[in-house]
Order: sequence, then C-alpha cells, then structure tokens
Amino acid sequence: MKLQLARGTRDFPPEDKIARQELTKTLTNIFERYGFAPLETPVIERMDVLAAKYAGGETADVMKEVFRFQDQGGRELGLRFDLTVPLARYVGMNPELKLPFKRYQIGKVYRDGPIKQGRYREFWQYDVDIVGCKAMQADAEIIRVVLDVFSALGLDVEVRVNNRKLLSALIEQAGISPELAETVIITLDKLDKAGEEGVIAELKDKGFDKEEAEAVIKSLKEKTLDDYEQLLPRNEGAKELKELFSLLPKDERVVFFPSLARGLAYYTGPVFEVYSKDLPISLAGGGRYDDMIGNYLGSKQAIPATGLAFGFEPILDVLKKQGKITAKKSLTQIYVIPIGDADATTVVRELRAAGVNTDVDLMGRGPSKNLRYADAYGIPYALFVGEDERKAGKYTLRDLQTGEEKKGTVQELISTTTLERLNQ
Amino acid sequence: MKLQLARGTRDFPPEDKIARQELTKTLTNIFERYGFAPLETPVIERMDVLAAKYAGGETADVMKEVFRFQDQGGRELGLRFDLTVPLARYVGMNPELKLPFKRYQIGKVYRDGPIKQGRYREFWQYDVDIVGCKAMQADAEIIRVVLDVFSALGLDVEVRVNNRKLLSALIEQAGISPELAETVIITLDKLDKAGEEGVIAELKDKGFDKEEAEAVIKSLKEKTLDDYEQLLPRNEGAKELKELFSLLPKDERVVFFPSLARGLAYYTGPVFEVYSKDLPISLAGGGRYDDMIGNYLGSKQAIPATGLAFGFEPILDVLKKQGKITAKKSLTQIYVIPIGDADATTVVRELRAAGVNTDVDLMGRGPSKNLRYADAYGIPYALFVGEDERKAGKYTLRDLQTGEEKKGTVQELISTTTLERLNQ
Repeated sequence: MKLQLARGTRDFPPEDKIARQELTKTLTNIFERYGFAPLETPVIERMDVLAAKYAGGETADVMKEVFRFQDQGGRELGLRFDLTVPLARYVGMNPELKLPFKRYQIGKVYRDGPIKQGRYREFWQYDVDIVGCKAMQADAEIIRVVLDVFSALGLDVEVRVNNRKLLSALIEQAGISPELAETVIITLDKLDKAGEEGVIAELKDKGFDKEEAEAVIKSLKEKTLDDYEQLLPRNEGAKELKELFSLLPKDERVVFFPSLARGLAYYTGPVFEVYSKDLPISLAGGGRYDDMIGNYLGSKQAIPATGLAFGFEPILDVLKKQGKITAKKSLTQIYVIPIGDADATTVVRELRAAGVNTDVDLMGRGPSKNLRYADAYGIPYALFVGEDERKAGKYTLRDLQTGEEKKGTVQELISTTTLERLNQ
Repeated sequence: MKLQLARGTRDFPPEDKIARQELTKTLTNIFERYGFAPLETPVIERMDVLAAKYAGGETADVMKEVFRFQDQGGRELGLRFDLTVPLARYVGMNPELKLPFKRYQIGKVYRDGPIKQGRYREFWQYDVDIVGCKAMQADAEIIRVVLDVFSALGLDVEVRVNNRKLLSALIEQAGISPELAETVIITLDKLDKAGEEGVIAELKDKGFDKEEAEAVIKSLKEKTLDDYEQLLPRNEGAKELKELFSLLPKDERVVFFPSLARGLAYYTGPVFEVYSKDLPISLAGGGRYDDMIGNYLGSKQAIPATGLAFGFEPILDVLKKQGKITAKKSLTQIYVIPIGDADATTVVRELRAAGVNTDVDLMGRGPSKNLRYADAYGIPYALFVGEDERKAGKYTLRDLQTGEEKKGTVQELISTTTLERLNQ
C-alpha cells in the first residue's frame, strides 16, 4: 500500500498548525469583541437540508460538489459545503432564539471540485452572521468587523460593496426578464476572472442576445452611487447602499463596486467581497440573505440575515507571502537534558508546575544528541541536570540562540528577564 | 421539509460551545506544558489507509462503522474513526520527522454505529501520543499528562494500567493458542459491561472450551504485580509494568488492573484506561502500539509509539453532572443601549478599542426591550447613551445583576474595579 492523503486534503504539521492556531485566536478575539458568540454544527448534514432550494440548490454547481453517502439506516447524507446553510437550519430548528442572533462559526467545509492552485476539497471557513435584523446597521456591523480583522492582520485590502437589488434592476433595464436575472448574476460573478469578453460570450452561450449582454456590462460602468440613484431614482438597492455607507466609519478601504455579483443564489441585498491588494484573490465574501431562513421554515414571515465568510486559506497564503507568519515547530520553552544517570523528574515537575512548557529527554541520549534534538524543534532554552545540580537544586540554563548560560534554582531561572523572553 | 440533524450528530449552541472552548483551553495548555505540539490531519482519509490491517482492520467491528463514499474521481474514501490511524499515516509519510515526535491532536471522529445514551456518530477526541520512543519513560509521560489533566478538571478518576504481553501470556497459559489470543482479548474487553458469565458465554460462542474460558478469567484474579511475576517469571509485560510504576509519581489514582484488555488489535505493550469514580464510564484510554507504524510503512524497522485518547464527550458529561460547567450564552461584557436618537457609534468603538467585548442595539429598540435582550444573553453590564451623555462623553454603566449604577468616561468606567469583574 502506498501511503497517500485523500485528494484535495492536507496535513497540518506543528509548524503550520501553531501559526493557524495563532491566527484563529486573533480572529476569534475580534469576533467576540464585537459581540459574536460561537456556534458549532455537524460536518455531516442531511442531503435534504443541503439541497433545499434556498440553500443554494438552484445554483447547481455547488450541489455537484457535495460529498454524498448514506448511513447504515439508508439516510441520504452529505458533508456541508459552507457554514451558512447549517446556520439557517439551526435557526429554523430553534425558534426560541432571541434575535438578533450574532454568531461566529469556525469549521471545515467540503467541496468535491477540481483541484487548482490554492483550492482544496477540505478547507476551513470562519463565518460571522447576524440573524434577525433587517436594518443596514447589521450590514455595517459586519463590515466593521471585517475592517478590524484586516487591520489587526496588517493586510492591505479593498472591501467591495454592492447590492443585489441594484444589480437586478440594471439587468431588467437591459431588457432581460426578472426570472433570468439570477443566471446573469452568476455569470457576472466571473467578470474578474473571465473579463468582459468572457462574460459576454458566456451570456450568449446561455441564450442571451449580444445586445442584452453588452447593455448589462455597460450599465455596470457608472462610477458613483449618485450616478445610479439618478439612473434608477426609486431603486431600493441604491438607497440601502447610501444608508450603509453613512453608517460606516470613513475608511478608504470600503468602496462601492457596481459589478460585484457574488455567485450564490440566496443573496437579497448588500453583498460584500474583500480583495487582497497584494495577491489578486478574494479573502472574504458575503452578503444579505433575507429569504433563506424563512423559506427553510416554510413560514411567510421572513427572518432577515446578513453575514460574511473569511477564507482562512487565502488569508494564510497572503500572510505567508508577506513573511508575516513565523513557523514554529514546537511550543516548548525549556528542554531538560539529564547528564549521566541524573534523575530530572523533580526539576521537570517543578518547571511544569510553574507554567513553563517543558520537555525532557525520554530516550537516555547523550547531551550533544539532545542539543541537536532541541535545535531541530527550535526550542529556545536547554536546562542541564547533573547529579551535583540535582542535589544542590541549582541548574544550568542555556539560551540556545546566544549560547549564554545562567545558573540558579528553578525560581531564579524562570524569574523576570528570562520569563519575559519565554513569553514572547 | 422537516428540519432535522443527521442521526447521531448535534449542534452546539453558544451555551455549550463556550464551555467546550474553555475545556479545550485547559487541556491544550497542559498538553503544551508537557511538550506536545499540535497536529491536524484531514477528516477524510482513503479507505485503504483506514482499512489497513494494523490500523484496526482485523477488528472488523470498527470497519463496519466507517462512513464510506467516493470522490468524483471514483476514489474510495471514508471518515476517520480515530486519530491514531491518521497519526501513523502522517509519520509514515514524513520520514524526516525528528523522533521522538510528541503531538496532540484535537478533532472530530465518526462512527456509524448504534446510538446509545452518550454515544454519537460525530464526536470530538483529544489525543496525546509519543512516537519513536520504546522506553517506558514515554508511557510514564502519557500517564503524567493524564494525572495532571484530571487534577486540573477536579475529577475523581482511577487510572487502570495493564500490559498486553502479560495478558497474552495468561491466555496462552490457559491452553489457548497465540493466534487466537486476540479474539480472546477483544472479548475480555467486555468484562466490565458483560460480567464474567457474559464473557465466558461469548468465548464459548466463539468456539472456546468452557475450561479454557474459565481458566483465563481465573488467571486475571491475582492481585499484585508481584503475584504475576511469580506466576510468569520471565514475562516481559510484568517487567515493563514494574518499570513503568517505578517511573511514576506516588499517586493512589494509578492502579494495576490485570483484566484491562482494550478492544483494539494494535496494542502491543502497556494499555491504559481512565475510569470516572462518579459515573461508571471510561473517560480516556490508550496504550502502546509498537508495530502499527512500521507495518504501515512495510518496513522491518519498528517505529514504537504510545498514546492516549481523551473522551471529550464523557468528560463533559461528568463535569456537567457535577455542576462544574457554567453555561454562558454570550461572551459580551457590555451591552450599549442608545436612548432616543443618540448615536452610540463612538462609545462602542472606544469600548472595543479598549478590549472590552461590546455589543450594541442594532434594531432601534427602546431601553426596556434592550434590557430584556441583554438579560436573555446573560450580559453583565448595560451602558446607556443619551444625547446629553454623548455630548459630555460621560455614560451610565449599570451592573445588571445588582442594579448598581456608575457614571463616567469610558476610561473611568472600565478601569480598576469594573474591569476586574469583567475579566472574571
């Protein structure tokens, strides 16, 4: 048997996982600072939940990529492809929930699609959503979190904002019937990658006139919200955008982007996309989906919602490319090396009890082998324990970067200056 | 459509998830204090990896419970049923790894088995393993982590220790051929639940003589390690146990338990099981598996390993039963309530910038509705912002438990005494 990973999946060894845990901590701290609470839902969902019309079933591309299987009872199941559909199911199943419900969720999602550079079949998503608030304040809150996250990460981004209601009106104005608007929107989502000609070609393939296609593209070229308000004086989408921008702090990063479409069928109002200015990739995306939860429930009362998914993988890619990730192989602070037959049990216990991440030779190796081991894992300090040291309760601590040594009791060695560096 | 979860899976709403995150933090802090580094592997593995003989394929019970499916390329895949098999695959695929490799892994695992009380089809496991050290020091290190974890959790446990080599010798001495020893061991694992008679009956069903079965059971009734050393003077298992106990701190919780079997085929030496003294359930289990990784690699050189999986779900069950879990619905510390048309944007931004978890009314509700909302989520403080307050930059902070109010600038309100309670 040849040892292999399932295609499109990855291992994260400590040097990756430690960096991922640190990034996760940065993000969750900000989510919690904005009043979002954590939710966890299963990786496995029932196929009828995943395939429900308003969960994205209409945009059949996503459904083709679901990993499907049955349990022993013959129930049709699948692996979730995002964290929005499970949220809608959760809200639907918990009618007692006090609204607005602000939740964040961190989890793996699955898409059995083609493997391209930077695309995986198993990947992490970090979502923030606000359920139960139809006011633009909720969309503004989502954008505020986004701005804070990318400031904290030190990444240069453009937060593109548009509105589905504006886009639909422009499509209608180009002479396309409202039922076909969704098809056009999904195609427009490819403008960035396929260019105008590519999109016009795809629209023609899908049966639209060349004139219709060109009219739509042309209508996306106005510059300002005011231009669109003049063009479509009663359009609710333009009004919502005006209000949304008025609620946001002055921030050059947030821009009105009339051609932003977002490929999923369920968006109903503002849509957002965060573009990296360093790599031409999207780092986060989302929008308002006011109908999805109500439709799930079969209720006539809409339950409005808005939110955004952070692409953890592309964010890490950009951070890595900018050298903002340090790959640590170990979190151990002191590696204890017994000399000869000296028993290091007590000092190891003492260090750990003092809260120092401590590892110790388990193999009975000599000092030079042990030093090579500590070096391979990038452990900053070695502590030597000979029989004399053990008896005196005073040990030698060596800084493995500078070679500097210090002698003292455990309490002396881990106090002040040393601990400062340990905690860095 | 009726909204439903996949059978055997669960949602964790904030009041569960916050407690789970806190427990995770306690455990990972201890793992890291003992020099274990985090590893992540995919939830999806290739079926040939999961079904490999030494991965547990022989004990067919586990394989029957694997969720299986194919990707679009027709590859046979499955959801992992534990974190040990993926570790073996990872080590096999990374021959450059410096040994010993001490890793912890936290992840969901899947078993499509019967749903019983406290058993799920998707559940979390927390594993610690040491790969590449055949010395009993490694097994002792695993038990030291275990003792520290359960001390930190304040749970009363018994850490049962046995050795497969001892068990195999006893089975052989009862007249059973070594090839059948494994079948007997898997049956013995049920002693706790099925009792002596149940085990004897199952062994008879499996074709063993009544006398053989009774002889095995009888041989497990000696009390001390010394008894077994007298009984089997050259047995390596008894010697290993002697050494292991000599390396451990004096701790009444660790006991030699001659009938402990552990159901998996891959154990080769010491085996461990942590029993709760409060509920009759196992909270963690593991052992030494020296052959599995080498066999995976098809190499003749064994890569010894030992480790243990913490049952996150049963640990939480016991903690809950003992009232040691407080269910928080929110991590928000201050809920900001605008009065009338007052704009709270600035104070909210100030609070968040100061590191306070702050939420704010997004709905334009009145104060009493807002107070009910803050109360429903158990948020400790409300801050009121009227137009006068906004202009003066002085706000009223109300302790929602005591009703006590304080007036001041943001800096005054969040300083000293207040912050102390906020950080509890």
